[in-house]
Parts: sequence; structure tokens; C-alpha cells
Amino acid sequence: MSLLVVGSVAIDNIETPQARRDNLLGGSATHFSYAASFFTQVHLVSVVGGDWPAEHTEFLRRRGIDVSGIQVIPDGKSFRWTGRYEKNMNDRETLDIELDVFGRFQPTLSEAFRRTPYVFLGNAAPITQLAALNQVTGPKLAVADTMELWIQTTHADLLRLFRQIDGLVCNDSEAKMLADTENLVLAGHRVRAMGPKFVVIKKGEHGAMFFSEYETYVLPAYPTERVIDPTGAGDSFAGGMMGYLAEQDNWDPETLKTAMAYGILTASFNVEGFGLERMREITRQEIEDRLDEYRKMLSF
Amino acid sequence: MSLLVVGSVAIDNIETPQARRDNLLGGSATHFSYAASFFTQVHLVSVVGGDWPAEHTEFLRRRGIDVSGIQVIPDGKSFRWTGRYEKNMNDRETLDIELDVFGRFQPTLSEAFRRTPYVFLGNAAPITQLAALNQVTGPKLAVADTMELWIQTTHADLLRLFRQIDGLVCNDSEAKMLADTENLVLAGHRVRAMGPKFVVIKKGEHGAMFFSEYETYVLPAYPTERVIDPTGAGDSFAGGMMGYLAEQDNWDPETLKTAMAYGILTASFNVEGFGLERMREITRQEIEDRLDEYRKMLSF
Repeated sequence: MSLLVVGSVAIDNIETPQARRDNLLGGSATHFSYAASFFTQVHLVSVVGGDWPAEHTEFLRRRGIDVSGIQVIPDGKSFRWTGRYEKNMNDRETLDIELDVFGRFQPTLSEAFRRTPYVFLGNAAPITQLAALNQVTGPKLAVADTMELWIQTTHADLLRLFRQIDGLVCNDSEAKMLADTENLVLAGHRVRAMGPKFVVIKKGEHGAMFFSEYETYVLPAYPTERVIDPTGAGDSFAGGMMGYLAEQDNWDPETLKTAMAYGILTASFNVEGFGLERMREITRQEIEDRLDEYRKMLSF
Repeated sequence: MSLLVVGSVAIDNIETPQARRDNLLGGSATHFSYAASFFTQVHLVSVVGGDWPAEHTEFLRRRGIDVSGIQVIPDGKSFRWTGRYEKNMNDRETLDIELDVFGRFQPTLSEAFRRTPYVFLGNAAPITQLAALNQVTGPKLAVADTMELWIQTTHADLLRLFRQIDGLVCNDSEAKMLADTENLVLAGHRVRAMGPKFVVIKKGEHGAMFFSEYETYVLPAYPTERVIDPTGAGDSFAGGMMGYLAEQDNWDPETLKTAMAYGILTASFNVEGFGLERMREITRQEIEDRLDEYRKMLSF
């Protein structure tokens, strides 16, 4: 089944303790789409300005991602992000952020896109996420991401969104903030009670947790020592997870857990290079090989 | 097979955001011994002062732990620790520490203890750990713990210890400090290269990692929302792990991985009450039930 993602594509400048790279193809919907494209057909809905390099769109198109939903605003400027990672490669500082056209993003879905069965609402204002979701006709699965900014500034909209989605993917600090507790297990249960049928909490280098009415579990991250650039790791996780669910056309508990594992492993490749550099080197088979290794790691 | 532990027994005063408890039976060798006693016969070697409450020793004796190696120095004072946990229940501040008799601890092993096949050297000055280890005759497995203080102040002694032990158990910040890197996977490999045949890195609420020449893996913590008092979690982990290895009389790779899981689950009970309160409520069967649940959690 096909998968729709609505979210940002961007131009990233990234500095790590080891290196600096400018003008990388980035954005959460970009990392999501590339990760999901190992598993299924992806329709990407986003917005860019007249300055957007045509080769970025072409790169995604050649990858088989449907880029027809990327709207170009000729007199606008594309979303740009500049960030620097601390020595621990987890904490990062945003040095510069220019939302530009993405700040005024009003997604309009084509007739064909409205019937996509699997939907992912990338990080954006909840009102924008709701506007996109409301255009989709009876999706089989709708999952959203969010961030601290929206928890703090548009809490009521976010709660409205939560009641309309099947799943929420967020990171540990967001879950703690939403639930007002430092205990992540408690946070997961509390956020689920706000509406989503399931909640996935991303813990970066420590893996991810899953919460539904009947299940609570944790899966660890794949232990890679080659952490080059963590940008987009969470988006690749969501892309691998949603891509696998769309491929299987199922989100029963067993499929969801396997999807979590695919998300974790897809993300483990994403961090092994700047931007999408490592992702473009690998094939589905390499994800499968790492999954076999991961299953062995977790069995005793 | 029996298991020898050399380390601290103490009186703890613990404050959490929810409660405060004074005069608890604590100390790393105490938590270790109690956890290990679910699996095997434990011989505890430690030192206390004349102020030590007889009921603490009696409690351990009734549990079946061999307390004959607890030396009493009548005119000395027992080790006391007062700590306060932050809201996140991970970070803690030591408000007061009185090492007293433990600061001058010179372990002397009885003839019988010297032949114990499984040995754990709890956190103490490396010179003290070495003094204990050198009294043991050809142990089948010797594992040590350490802490930041010794990494900073007695580095050469520590490296000498590393070359004489089979395994090292330490926490994430200690491994990073030892290896001078923020990448835990790299840290694990580097510390192993310093001498131990295997290294276990404890990550608190995020589980534990294992490193040997041929294997690297991570197991997540058991997701409990009932975190009452994390004191001794790392020691219970080591106790559960070593207890199981001693019971199996084997530390091949497969047994080691299962032992890691037992360590994680034993520790998950330890944090569910102040001091040993939760531990004394449970039986081996409850650890086994949680292990079944944990195995299911990790299979997909």
C-alpha cells in the first residue's frame, strides 16, 4: 500500500565535532520518505522556494519517491536549518533557522493523494497537520509527529489532533513535557490516554518504547559506533516503521513490533553518514541482514 | 557454585521527590548479595563498626547469606551514605558520606573463602580489590566494579586490576571517562582492550551493553513505572548476573547473555521499593515470570 507524508524538506548546514557540511538535502519529510522508500511507494507533500536546487527533487524522484506534491513558491525561500552537535552527538544547538515558505505551509492534497491508505503527518503546527489529515478520506492508519514548540504554544490544537490520529511518534523530552512526568513509562501511558491508540517514544541512542492499551515494550537501538550525523534519525525511524506497515498493509500488534524494529535499524544506517549519504549506499538487503543480527542480539 | 563478594555494607539515608527514609540497610555488597541470593550461596566479605545494628546482619543471615566474613571493628563507625534523587530519579546528589571503617577496609579471606569459584569485587579502591583478588586461589570467574573516583585518582592501580579480572561492570559515565569518548560502543571496546575479557556497561533506565572480543549487544531495561528508589540498582544487576553465572557454573557467551537478562530483571525489582523493601517481598518465581515477559517483549 502507498504511504503519504506531509512535512518539511529543507537545506541543512550541519556541524559536528569532526566535520562541517553545508547545503545538504534535509528536512524531516525527506529523511522519512527516503527511509520509507525501502519498503513502499511514498507520496511526499511539502513546499519549497524558488531557490530550491532542482537536483534535490530529481534525486528523490530517481529514488522512486513521488515528488509531485512538492509545491514550488517561486518568490519564496526554502526552509533552511543550521545546527551544531555537541561532543556527545546527542545534544544539538540550532544556530540558525529560516522557516520561510514552510512557515506558511498550507498543504493541498491532490485527488489521488486523498485516498492514500497510510498517512504520516511530519512535524508542523498541529493546525497544519489537521488541515492535511482532514483532506484524507478514511485512511487505514494515520500517525503524527510533534515537537516541544507545539506542546508549549498550541496545546489545545495538539489535543484535538491526538483525538483524530491512530498513532503518535514523539521523542522522550516531548513525552515528558506532554505528560508532566519524568517517568517515561508513565508518560507513555498518559499521552496515549490523550487520544492516540498507540504512542511511540523515541529515545535516540537508547532505542524506542511502545505503548498501546494492552502492550508496553522497549526495543534498544542497534549499537553502532559509527555515529557521523544524527540529523534525521527520528524521521528515518518513523519512515522505516511506517514504510513497513504500509508494505504489510497491517498494523496489528505483531506487525507493529516488527515495524518498530525496522524503524530502529533504518535509523541506525541514517546516522552513519551526513544527511542521506549512508542511506543512499545501502539496499533493503542490508536492512534485512542487520535485522537478522538484531534479532539474534535480542534472543537468549 | 558459590559466589564471593567483597565490598561495602552501609547505612543509607535516602531522599526522593516523594519521600525520605533513614537508617536503611544499604551498601553495594548488600544489594549485590541479596540479588545473588535468589540464585546461589553467597559469601559476603565486608567491614562494619561497633554502631552496626545487629538486626541488619541477622536479616542477611536469615536470607541464607553467609555473613561470617563481615568483620566488626568495635571502636569504628559503619559506612553511612546520605543522598537525594532529582525529579528524574536518575541524577542524585550525595549529601553526606562517611566512609569510616570502610575507608580503611583491608579484606582478609578465610581459608574456605579463598577457594570460592565465582568472585565479585564490589566498588572499592583498586588496591583493596587487588588485595582481595590475590587471596583467591584460581577463581573460575572474577569480575569487578569501579567508580569515577578511582578512575581519576588511582588510574595505574585500576589498569593493573583490569589485567587480572575476567569481567568489568561499570556504568556509562565511568566507561566514557575510562575510554575518553562519548560514544558508548567505542568506549566498551576500548575498555575491553585494557584487559578484561568482557565489559558490561550499565545504562540505568536504558538497560545494559555487553562487549567481548566477538560480541557486542544491548539489552533494554524492563519498563517499570514504579521507580521508588534506584539506590543499589546497579549492584542488584551485578548480583543477579553473577548469581546466575555461579548457579549455572558457566560463563560461555549464551549463559552470559541470559545472566545479563537476569541482572536487568533483578534490578527492575530493586528499584520498586526503598532499600531492599521490594526485594524481600519477591521470590525466584517472580523473577522467572518477569523473564518470560521480557523474552516476549524482545521477540517479534
